[in-house]
Amino acid sequence: MSSSLVLHSYWRSSCSFRVRIALHLKGLSFETRPVHLVKDGGRQFDAEFTALNPMQQVPALSVVPAGGAAPTTITQSVAIMEYLEDAHPAVPLLPASHEHRAWVRQLVETVASGTQPIQNLAVIRKHAALCPEVDGAGPAWATHWITLGLDALETMANAPPPGVSAPKPGEFLAGAQPSIADCCLVPQLFNARRFEVDLQRYPTLLAVEKVCLEHPAFVAALPENQIDAEA
Amino acid sequence: MSSSLVLHSYWRSSCSFRVRIALHLKGLSFETRPVHLVKDGGRQFDAEFTALNPMQQVPALSVVPAGGAAPTTITQSVAIMEYLEDAHPAVPLLPASHEHRAWVRQLVETVASGTQPIQNLAVIRKHAALCPEVDGAGPAWATHWITLGLDALETMANAPPPGVSAPKPGEFLAGAQPSIADCCLVPQLFNARRFEVDLQRYPTLLAVEKVCLEHPAFVAALPENQIDAEA
Repeated sequence: MSSSLVLHSYWRSSCSFRVRIALHLKGLSFETRPVHLVKDGGRQFDAEFTALNPMQQVPALSVVPAGGAAPTTITQSVAIMEYLEDAHPAVPLLPASHEHRAWVRQLVETVASGTQPIQNLAVIRKHAALCPEVDGAGPAWATHWITLGLDALETMANAPPPGVSAPKPGEFLAGAQPSIADCCLVPQLFNARRFEVDLQRYPTLLAVEKVCLEHPAFVAALPENQIDAEA
Repeated sequence: MSSSLVLHSYWRSSCSFRVRIALHLKGLSFETRPVHLVKDGGRQFDAEFTALNPMQQVPALSVVPAGGAAPTTITQSVAIMEYLEDAHPAVPLLPASHEHRAWVRQLVETVASGTQPIQNLAVIRKHAALCPEVDGAGPAWATHWITLGLDALETMANAPPPGVSAPKPGEFLAGAQPSIADCCLVPQLFNARRFEVDLQRYPTLLAVEKVCLEHPAFVAALPENQIDAEA
């Protein structure tokens, strides 16, 4: 018997959204265990969840061996997606060549370390608490950093390295097959809309998003399709 | 003939520092091309560098093929380290098992996406410009986020998943061999000292750092040993 997968997730968390897409793209079944990031001050701060992830963030993926051995819990969305790629390579989410893989990971990190961490809920709250009165606090803080990140991502997508093509009509960010770069792009655009970023600046990213949202794995991973979704 | 490597770097940039360690651990020779992040408002904003990296950040690694073909430039320190692992596997910086690799990448991302992006120079400057008068602006902003990240990292290091041991005396973060997690840890501790974080809270991380700093690859990568180091 193989191990089973439990995803600790919140419907609106863009980092949880990334991992849900990757799981669905690979055709892996998993149980969703919701962690409400707002209710009661945030259930990610509960002792039980903190023991799973000392960073007190979702997602966390528990790999539960058959037969009752202790589970392994992996945190950090990029680490989880790389684990899925290592452990379940049948549907690859990284290309074959070293240079092409580097390109995909560059796009991933431009979102996952270059953009999202600065606009996450904890950082927005801290910034707004320190300077509640100024222009540029709260949502404007998020809008600023998302715009910088997506500006760079749109430019990169149209200027790939030698041997890699910019996305053609109907293609994903890194070509004909979806990759972990698409798993990061779509949730970042979801965040961008929440903060009313002007997306007309990003025709290439929007074209790729459209292709993604026609794919059932992306649809299954959408926030509104989760068991903990709210109106 | 093999390709040559050019690292666009700044001596005090912790993300450049990560990649320098990885290059030295793998025994790869490379040319350092300094990008001064402060002088003239920051040379990372020059058109020439922006063409290499639209995010206007160091590091960037240019892989220059022998024979005059166009170079490939990779940005984002984690993407660069993963590329080096793919292209130059002789000295591995990731363990062999899927679960152990996931563990290393979780530690990497706890620094690379969970901590450093929120305390980087551009974010500190933006925050301080918006709220110059409040407690918690400037260095205090960085201290707050570095402390949260290192608190979690110290806890994680002492509570590894089944089958993985916490670092024993004389070991690196993920065991007897250095990994990309050490490449991230040492520069993050360097940043922590700049911002006067209380490091006595982190006995395990400090013990690993001591082991790292006895290794010639880490020494060669130290900020003060770079060609662009300043007094």
